[in-house]
Amino acid sequence: MATIPLGRYLWERIHQCGIDHIFGGLNAAYATDGYARTTGGAGCFVTTHGVGELSALNGVAGSMTEQVKSIHVVGQTSRKMQKNCMMIHHSIGFNPDHNIFNNASKAFRVAAAEIQSEEGATEEIDRVLRECFVKSRPVYIFLPIDLVDKHVPAKALETPLDLKPVADEKKVEEAANAVLDALYASKNPSIFVDCLVQRYQADAEMRELVDKLAIPIYTSNMGKGIIDENHPQYVGLYNGMPSGPGVEAAYIESDLMIVVGNLPSDTNSGGFTRQAPAEKIVAIDAENVTVKEKTYPEGPIKAVLRKLLDSVSTDKVPQVEMPKLPERPLEDDRDSKLITQSWVWHRLAEFLKPHDVIFGETGTAAFGIPDATFPPHTQWITQTYYGSIGYATPAAFGVEVALTRNEAQGKPRGRTILVTGDGSLMLTVQEVGNMVKQGLKPIIILINNAGYTIERVIHGARQSYNDIVPFDYSHMLPFFNMDESEARMNFHRAETKAGLEEIFGLEHVRKPKTVQVVEVVMDAMDVPWRLSTQIATRGPAAVKEMEEAGFKVRQLQKQES
Amino acid sequence: MATIPLGRYLWERIHQCGIDHIFGGLNAAYATDGYARTTGGAGCFVTTHGVGELSALNGVAGSMTEQVKSIHVVGQTSRKMQKNCMMIHHSIGFNPDHNIFNNASKAFRVAAAEIQSEEGATEEIDRVLRECFVKSRPVYIFLPIDLVDKHVPAKALETPLDLKPVADEKKVEEAANAVLDALYASKNPSIFVDCLVQRYQADAEMRELVDKLAIPIYTSNMGKGIIDENHPQYVGLYNGMPSGPGVEAAYIESDLMIVVGNLPSDTNSGGFTRQAPAEKIVAIDAENVTVKEKTYPEGPIKAVLRKLLDSVSTDKVPQVEMPKLPERPLEDDRDSKLITQSWVWHRLAEFLKPHDVIFGETGTAAFGIPDATFPPHTQWITQTYYGSIGYATPAAFGVEVALTRNEAQGKPRGRTILVTGDGSLMLTVQEVGNMVKQGLKPIIILINNAGYTIERVIHGARQSYNDIVPFDYSHMLPFFNMDESEARMNFHRAETKAGLEEIFGLEHVRKPKTVQVVEVVMDAMDVPWRLSTQIATRGPAAVKEMEEAGFKVRQLQKQES
Repeated sequence: MATIPLGRYLWERIHQCGIDHIFGGLNAAYATDGYARTTGGAGCFVTTHGVGELSALNGVAGSMTEQVKSIHVVGQTSRKMQKNCMMIHHSIGFNPDHNIFNNASKAFRVAAAEIQSEEGATEEIDRVLRECFVKSRPVYIFLPIDLVDKHVPAKALETPLDLKPVADEKKVEEAANAVLDALYASKNPSIFVDCLVQRYQADAEMRELVDKLAIPIYTSNMGKGIIDENHPQYVGLYNGMPSGPGVEAAYIESDLMIVVGNLPSDTNSGGFTRQAPAEKIVAIDAENVTVKEKTYPEGPIKAVLRKLLDSVSTDKVPQVEMPKLPERPLEDDRDSKLITQSWVWHRLAEFLKPHDVIFGETGTAAFGIPDATFPPHTQWITQTYYGSIGYATPAAFGVEVALTRNEAQGKPRGRTILVTGDGSLMLTVQEVGNMVKQGLKPIIILINNAGYTIERVIHGARQSYNDIVPFDYSHMLPFFNMDESEARMNFHRAETKAGLEEIFGLEHVRKPKTVQVVEVVMDAMDVPWRLSTQIATRGPAAVKEMEEAGFKVRQLQKQES
Repeated sequence: MATIPLGRYLWERIHQCGIDHIFGGLNAAYATDGYARTTGGAGCFVTTHGVGELSALNGVAGSMTEQVKSIHVVGQTSRKMQKNCMMIHHSIGFNPDHNIFNNASKAFRVAAAEIQSEEGATEEIDRVLRECFVKSRPVYIFLPIDLVDKHVPAKALETPLDLKPVADEKKVEEAANAVLDALYASKNPSIFVDCLVQRYQADAEMRELVDKLAIPIYTSNMGKGIIDENHPQYVGLYNGMPSGPGVEAAYIESDLMIVVGNLPSDTNSGGFTRQAPAEKIVAIDAENVTVKEKTYPEGPIKAVLRKLLDSVSTDKVPQVEMPKLPERPLEDDRDSKLITQSWVWHRLAEFLKPHDVIFGETGTAAFGIPDATFPPHTQWITQTYYGSIGYATPAAFGVEVALTRNEAQGKPRGRTILVTGDGSLMLTVQEVGNMVKQGLKPIIILINNAGYTIERVIHGARQSYNDIVPFDYSHMLPFFNMDESEARMNFHRAETKAGLEEIFGLEHVRKPKTVQVVEVVMDAMDVPWRLSTQIATRGPAAVKEMEEAGFKVRQLQKQES
């Protein structure tokens, strides 16, 4: 029987799963997350045991809670070193347990291959790779250094892994029928699209289904972009209290709410103010369907959506009149020549083009960009639930790598538009160097508002702990070894709306050939209305603190009426 | 009874333990570690739950294994949120357990106060702070946000905490007597000083004892600097096979080896080649004493050394002739005009002044600097056991903060000399910005050898994964917002020995008033002999790989003869 070194088996199998790039080193877990979101499959990174894996753990935890497919390969000490508890560097204490790091990360993965023998190793690898896709969350593979070159049977590689969840045809049908019965019986149904649709690779089915149903469509913060926002049935982004004028009023008129791929964290539900009366809810979740409080188990989301597409009688779906939303209110600061939160995101929307990937780093960007109406085929990436600042820059690196892969495969290659803040960029700024080195070409839009504005609005508006280390961004690209004259061309700074207009008009910004940095200067005390409104959900004391600090809190109730 | 808010109690108590600065945010765990090493006490940092604590975990693990006192305060979600498993941002999954992060870090601390009520909270805080000092390792305090303002009795604050380990006078005496009996009976004893002496705050006793005993002194890699290397009894740094000529031969002549504060990791024992025949060993460890295989428990190191000082009859201690070591061999590359590994560390030694704190970041610096003979009162910091690259830069920030504290207390304030590599600096380079912002004045000596030379010598000498993102360091200080003309003054680059001589002669480098950066260009394939020799301990295959790649491996056996 043909054999292959175990290490080789591992990489061949990972490659078969649609992974063409392996990340390593600094910020690799974040890059992997970005890569996975954009390929729609999994990403993979490798670290040493101990120091490498702990440094990556926060990135893995983000993938865990946001349900992103991440494969973490750890180069482990030899079995002899493990067995003898040898004090090899990176270990902990006297008589060290070499599994201490592996154990520490148990809660942040859905499966692990803790390989201790070449016997059965390939089956273990196959099992966890499958789990990564089926459960759409991180897995962990640890390989002792003395096993890498051991030979194992190669035969399994002849058959690609089945990466789809098991779907019992009868159960899926039962669930789909229950959904359809509820839909046919309704008068004013709506559909609400959330992020797990994307994670469980059901975007195409989702888009096909909304076309077919032709009922009003809403999305969550995290689900934005899955459905084209220019779709004739698209109403808006519904996030409970911090929603645009009229959106909530329209949504709660629905007598049936089909909620697909829901991830109801505080930040994705307007601080738990998103309305979801159980008697009106049809929930199509990752693995189950619930229709008005009755649960149909073992119905994987993608299979259920496919079944709905195949079974629906469109003539039985009620015809719903599209809600009319009030016009966007005119902001007090609309005449400002300076760049304001109320203006910048709408302007950014005009800059976007189909197939772009746009990042809203945790901070004002994540709360501001939801105001932008995206063109079709825009991917929106924001770590809304986990919310770890510093995520977006290396994740954007991963996305750029994924986009070069798309290009190589003949697919449309959009631009990566990283919108981040000065506070967040600081944490993982090295990754900009990696972008320069690898010849990638993201557009980095950097909100310089002199610190952690998102924290200022929460607490301690004028406290020094919300200040950051100030950077002079004009030196960033040359520091990361871009030629000085080239760097001058590719760095831009806007203090006014007019200045930003000019920058957005530049050919080499619109069609970048190398990293573009656009520093956008904004006021430290200006915040997106969605952010202040989200904080206002905490109650009157929070509103009082914001107002006393000088933040503007929009009176949504007034606007609704 | 007088009361105080619980949050206030916590900070007051921490302050009472000798901590004047709290670190937060990026790289805080590393900074805390550096601060603790230089104050000789503990350091403290605060993070949010989840994202903050996982990001800091690798730093905490380093303090754990290197036995550094670190207090990690976590701002936790409210008890209601915890109880209801609310999907608050930073949490993991549906129905999230808010203790998931706390549990993940259990293996990297010696005690935790998981506060869930104001009742008994002060006692819990006091208990873990005491454990931090007694066990000289990290502790963890988590405080739900809704408990911060609850009032607790203030009375305990009137009595400072007892931070000393319990020492049973009789047991300590018994252990000390056993040591002295063995010493008096020996003919050719020696003393070997390792790093735990410093961690358990026994440096002063150690120095006094070596003066009194007047027998030959050796140190480990990690113990370097605790004893003045100009001491008349100092022989050298003994690290098994990778030791200077004659050192091992002299050491193994000892018929009694008093080993104090031993931490025998691979990297601190020449890949386990340091000789320690049990029948010759007296081990004074953190909590126990072992005399020729008989263990005397419950003898804390500091108490035992004090007892030895009080009890020793110096006239009974054998008089030992100091070993004569051969001269340092003349290196083949001694006439090079370029900066070589065999030259630079000795030159650096001449640059040092008493009370300096010198960092050897994991990499060639950590293996090169042991060749430098330090002036008295030099503190040597290197994360030899944990070996996490990226540690040294933020740890140097912590040290600089500690030195400003020394200065404020009227103690001598030396310079922080951070010797790091281009590969390591990259990981945590932001911290240089923090140094500029805070007006600190470390001297950063940056070895630019185009990548991970320490990894090249281990494996894959010419592989691209050992390359790094190249930086143009002339832009580093201006990027971190130092005025451009000032930055030009404070950045220096040496490609030749003569160039480095000139830089070391500059007044503002020798007595810095702000951050100094000295880029030292060295060959990617030049390594300290201690590093290649350490790798040679792995066996002939490792030597062959090094030699084939073009590294020079010193033939130590030849030199010994």
